[in-house]
Amino acid sequence: MSETSSPPACDLQVDFPFDYAAHLAGERRIGRLPRAAEGARVAVIGAGGSGLAAAYELLRAGCHPVVYEAERGADGPGGRRLGGRMYSRRLDDADSAVVELGCMRFPDSARLLRQYAERFGLHWEPFRENYAADVTPLTVLEVDGRQYRTHRITDLHDLHGDFRTAHTRWEEALSRIGLRQIQRDIAARNLGAVRRRWREVVDRYELWSFYRFLRDPEGVGLTHEEARILGTAGVGPAAWDCFFDLGLLEILRLVLCSEPSTQYCAREGISRLAEGFWVHRTTDAQGRHTSLEDVNGGALRPAVVALDVEPDASRGVVVHTADGHRERFAAAVFTPQLHLLETGVEVRSTVPGPPPLGPRMRRAIRRLHYWQSSKTALVVDRPFWKGTTLDGVTLTDRLPRAAYTLDYGPARRPGGRSGVLYLSFTWAQDAMKVSASSLEERVALFVRDLADIHPEVANELHRQARSGQAVTISWENEQNFRGLCRFSRPGDHLFQRDLFSHFMKDFAGRPAVPGEPPNALFLAGDDTSWSPGWLDHALASGINAAWGVLRLLGSDSEPGNPGPGDMWNDPDYAPMPLRQPSGTGSGD
Amino acid sequence: MSETSSPPACDLQVDFPFDYAAHLAGERRIGRLPRAAEGARVAVIGAGGSGLAAAYELLRAGCHPVVYEAERGADGPGGRRLGGRMYSRRLDDADSAVVELGCMRFPDSARLLRQYAERFGLHWEPFRENYAADVTPLTVLEVDGRQYRTHRITDLHDLHGDFRTAHTRWEEALSRIGLRQIQRDIAARNLGAVRRRWREVVDRYELWSFYRFLRDPEGVGLTHEEARILGTAGVGPAAWDCFFDLGLLEILRLVLCSEPSTQYCAREGISRLAEGFWVHRTTDAQGRHTSLEDVNGGALRPAVVALDVEPDASRGVVVHTADGHRERFAAAVFTPQLHLLETGVEVRSTVPGPPPLGPRMRRAIRRLHYWQSSKTALVVDRPFWKGTTLDGVTLTDRLPRAAYTLDYGPARRPGGRSGVLYLSFTWAQDAMKVSASSLEERVALFVRDLADIHPEVANELHRQARSGQAVTISWENEQNFRGLCRFSRPGDHLFQRDLFSHFMKDFAGRPAVPGEPPNALFLAGDDTSWSPGWLDHALASGINAAWGVLRLLGSDSEPGNPGPGDMWNDPDYAPMPLRQPSGTGSGD
Repeated sequence: MSETSSPPACDLQVDFPFDYAAHLAGERRIGRLPRAAEGARVAVIGAGGSGLAAAYELLRAGCHPVVYEAERGADGPGGRRLGGRMYSRRLDDADSAVVELGCMRFPDSARLLRQYAERFGLHWEPFRENYAADVTPLTVLEVDGRQYRTHRITDLHDLHGDFRTAHTRWEEALSRIGLRQIQRDIAARNLGAVRRRWREVVDRYELWSFYRFLRDPEGVGLTHEEARILGTAGVGPAAWDCFFDLGLLEILRLVLCSEPSTQYCAREGISRLAEGFWVHRTTDAQGRHTSLEDVNGGALRPAVVALDVEPDASRGVVVHTADGHRERFAAAVFTPQLHLLETGVEVRSTVPGPPPLGPRMRRAIRRLHYWQSSKTALVVDRPFWKGTTLDGVTLTDRLPRAAYTLDYGPARRPGGRSGVLYLSFTWAQDAMKVSASSLEERVALFVRDLADIHPEVANELHRQARSGQAVTISWENEQNFRGLCRFSRPGDHLFQRDLFSHFMKDFAGRPAVPGEPPNALFLAGDDTSWSPGWLDHALASGINAAWGVLRLLGSDSEPGNPGPGDMWNDPDYAPMPLRQPSGTGSGD
Repeated sequence: MSETSSPPACDLQVDFPFDYAAHLAGERRIGRLPRAAEGARVAVIGAGGSGLAAAYELLRAGCHPVVYEAERGADGPGGRRLGGRMYSRRLDDADSAVVELGCMRFPDSARLLRQYAERFGLHWEPFRENYAADVTPLTVLEVDGRQYRTHRITDLHDLHGDFRTAHTRWEEALSRIGLRQIQRDIAARNLGAVRRRWREVVDRYELWSFYRFLRDPEGVGLTHEEARILGTAGVGPAAWDCFFDLGLLEILRLVLCSEPSTQYCAREGISRLAEGFWVHRTTDAQGRHTSLEDVNGGALRPAVVALDVEPDASRGVVVHTADGHRERFAAAVFTPQLHLLETGVEVRSTVPGPPPLGPRMRRAIRRLHYWQSSKTALVVDRPFWKGTTLDGVTLTDRLPRAAYTLDYGPARRPGGRSGVLYLSFTWAQDAMKVSASSLEERVALFVRDLADIHPEVANELHRQARSGQAVTISWENEQNFRGLCRFSRPGDHLFQRDLFSHFMKDFAGRPAVPGEPPNALFLAGDDTSWSPGWLDHALASGINAAWGVLRLLGSDSEPGNPGPGDMWNDPDYAPMPLRQPSGTGSGD
């Protein structure tokens, strides 16, 4: 493989390159409960990807997982919505069209996710991503009032000189700091080399923001203008400029696991994956056929308001729900976005003394940052945009920022609709511009701008906006989320390491997070992953927590199939400390 | 003055050290309309500090300003609320207590503000700021579950080793980069020296974030822990850690104009300043006694939805309101937060051709970032906290982050209330944690944490939370604001310079912002200032716009009293270009 060819996106996380998909391939399990602990009841709080993966694998290992969910949903089990940020809405049963209000595109490098999806019978379709020439007829970049029509990102090189410079230097910089070699080494499973290189990157760039990297002569060295155009045109995700404040490591992790890769979406909507976890009949360690639906009596339990955590781990955790019920469990896995621990859910100790989350965990949770995110979709009877400039992706420096068109094929029944036009999908400041706007206001604003960018289809767009059905979400306004996902800023590495390490308690011989009490509460969710906002990593975080629960209940991993915690002390896996750049503080 | 003594906070803005207070002292005016233009009608959109200052000074110069305001307010003129983010609420007429939902504390360096306040008869009281030993009985810092009781910020040095290091090095770094000398030079009106030093700072640090400066060995060189504790304890503003993403220049400007200074609040509430602008009877350039209230027929006009801007400046601007009315004006001053130009207010040209805002202005407006901000106050019958640890300011790493207690003295009438307890005042991510929470939820959460921090007054606090009256705001949810104020990120200097320069059009001989059409629309508001979020700077931005309007209408400044635009080409004032750190782009 030459130095200049593109290595594949990483199918392992660079900070902890455990192969979760291989660990759970075929009939493999995370372990098997000892007979004395069989049927141990474990509370799983949150029926999103992380919680469902944890519950499903705990069930297969012989536990009795009980799943709690705060979100209401009329069609869901017990009147609650499965899926969390897997949130697909088919507005009418006759429609083939599905609106993805949460995650909507998944790289082919997400092997754990794809393995579950295959088991549960989901169908992947290529997602019409920007610059994906094979599936996206046109990517229109509109910036400073000028339009650039492209198929591949490199088409922009001939059209916009600043972009050519910016993109070329960006790619060169990624190679120079070793990112492409890390991808090759991951592909070759040369984990020692991965670790050495990544350690250099972390040590050098942990305090850098993405923007600093773009502008600094020792990074990409772009001008204000070049960075701005790269921010608008995107490299992979659109509207990169919303990412400028993020820590560079966050960006590099994103690049590692998603660039280059093909993005897919689920034909049935990604909520089907959540339903798969719930209804799939599996065989537990004792050979019984069972499902989460079965063991939960077909219903998700109500919102959790408090957790009483016993200092003695063997006494477990008492879960209190909004309707006044309580139950003691052998362990609890908490998967909602962790800032809810400061507001909606109280974590208490049953006796006076240190709180159930140690000082470092509380610090990390309090300083978590979440992205605002807004998406507005229009469901239309047919993909009316075919053959127009709207047929594909529109990227713009105007209010909508990024618009996508999807065709879900023939309607399921006569009168059903097949087209979804995402009028806008934005983050951070771009999302806040419309956060306080009504659905009608949003549609009117986005259609105004898109019609102006695509005059040839403007009349039809206005007509469809009147006859179609629109739906919108702002994750920051959702009571049980209050943000789309965590993001990390420069200097957050130590917080991330602590969050990721929580499931290890003291199983590796000493507390993985100094000062953390070894109780039966396990934190999971993509907040605790090294690269949040990816379903694959959320699932993996659930597997981590399930490993911890099993270990607490006295189970080892199956012979020949070590779990994530079993690799903790392996130098190719052990979460990296930081070399302090200065001072004598107790940062690590 | 020795090198180690503290110089005063700057009463001039370092980027444009025009003395607005001196310019308008006593009976001075910004100018006088030529006879032919007397009574020219000028639209002023937004009745906040910037709009009212512009309208008031335009009135004095002989214009007829017509003021529009989108905010409704039953008690305000024409059923609209005066003041913008000057937003004081006296919950009951008998109360002496006033809740400031917007700006609440004003440094004594804000000389333009203080001059107007004196003219309008406001009374200043010392604000009980953290570490202000003269007026604040106690500042309690609660971090990592430990409590530190202090009077002065230096008291913390003996109590917390990391803070001593962090604070000492921070002060040393500010001196080293010349900030304290700039303050001395501003005080001595040695503007040439100010400019030379500030140019060095801007050139060197324009791409730095506050956090980078704190951590980098070439900045303050703190550890993760030291930066964290400085972020919690604050230096001046509390909860500094919410500022970490900001551009360092933004932070330095904040330090320059507010540190060290005494902070004051308005006894009557700062909305009284807005009323002062509105009702104050002044003498116009023709010797007539008049007021904004008079010339507006006692009513603010409704929300503006569109501006038709004539390419020929002499034809002015047509203002369209939500109720379908329109009127042509000789000029228009637009003062709301500028991101509303992408949503609520459409700016159109009357003829095909370039839009009324040029490409650089549109870029700057689209990439503006706004801070979320939340404040929750409890109005209580009396300052029940007297003599307790709650008597002063509480800073914490928990949810409330910063709590303040204010005593407004004897009630105005029997049964009136005198105490205001700000349960929480937060920005950015800290504000978003409760952005989707109800008033009741917020009060319960903040009281929970404050009662835990102050056990001696916990019972009384709970009782007061039941009997008192609470009020809250999240500026990001306010339809006409959608954020508290702009903030600048690393690399935003060029955007800021363009925004500040808009009022200059081509009056200085060439377009102050290349490509900007010389029409009759003027942008103002603290968005356009060099250091947003300060009322003093918002007022100054209104004076700038008023200068531009007057110049457009054919007026010069009064002899011997040059206005801000008259200083434009003076090398001590001219907004600074940047030396590009690398590349050949067209950033400047």
